[in-house]
Amino acid sequence: MRILGIDPGVGTVGFGVIDTDKGKNTYVACGAVTTPPNTALSPRLDMIYNDLNELIVTFAPDAISVEELFFSKNITTGIAVAHGRGVILLSCYRSGVPVYEYTPMQVKQAVVGYGNAKKNQVIYMVQRLLNMKAPPKPDDAADALALAICHARSMTSKLLSTKGGEDPCSTI
Amino acid sequence: MRILGIDPGVGTVGFGVIDTDKGKNTYVACGAVTTPPNTALSPRLDMIYNDLNELIVTFAPDAISVEELFFSKNITTGIAVAHGRGVILLSCYRSGVPVYEYTPMQVKQAVVGYGNAKKNQVIYMVQRLLNMKAPPKPDDAADALALAICHARSMTSKLLSTKGGEDPCSTI
Repeated sequence: MRILGIDPGVGTVGFGVIDTDKGKNTYVACGAVTTPPNTALSPRLDMIYNDLNELIVTFAPDAISVEELFFSKNITTGIAVAHGRGVILLSCYRSGVPVYEYTPMQVKQAVVGYGNAKKNQVIYMVQRLLNMKAPPKPDDAADALALAICHARSMTSKLLSTKGGEDPCSTI
Repeated sequence: MRILGIDPGVGTVGFGVIDTDKGKNTYVACGAVTTPPNTALSPRLDMIYNDLNELIVTFAPDAISVEELFFSKNITTGIAVAHGRGVILLSCYRSGVPVYEYTPMQVKQAVVGYGNAKKNQVIYMVQRLLNMKAPPKPDDAADALALAICHARSMTSKLLSTKGGEDPCSTI
């Protein structure tokens, strides 16, 4: 089974692809979709949408794991990332591939073992779990691989509750 | 010249269409795109995207006026609306129609005469300025018509600064 993890954003959207089979995860690819700064938001959203469509066609995932937004500090960044996440969810939905959503805390719990792990701990564990020769770069790609691992683990463990179609926005 | 105003959201997206010619504004249509509550976010974004595409084809506007997000109170609502606004901007951008963005304060200033006007004052002035027999409903449609009027005025006045392609997210 192939899983595409996506770390949403506007300037940088991380992606990571793994294959998972009976609890064994294998690295396939990772990277980031980037959009130029000092550019209007609309064309950047269009770039993200087009690139996401292409990624889904290229890697043909069986499931997509997208990070839920969780902002307590920077409302401006949160609003911008939510614009990007909107077109990411649209692209995923239209592809017909099932989408699952996980909070940053669920991802850290699944990959490192506790929900308040630091970024470098996540990167280290992603590299180790996927037997990568070097740490995945950029950080957004490491986060995306962690999301993919998180979904792989959610299928073999009851420690994580997958959401699969539900979200906190559904009652608005 | 035909202007489509859009009040972004997830549950309700208001729209309002006016024709403007030498300072005279004429009502064409208004209403709201709604999506079912207690439904996953992704299909709701897809509905909004499809309906926006259809609205643009149906009314063939020369310009689109979209409200900028301005949230100081409810971060959860802000994040949800930003998801919706992302796919709205994507639809508008892909249509090729120029998009302009205005803050709620700019809209109130243009329609009522001061930026801290109440909602019922905006509705009253929209009805009066467009010679409508009854107040536009729902409120989101009134806001969308106000956005269209705001853009019409921005073209004949230097009181409002149009943004036309720039936005606060461009440096992220």
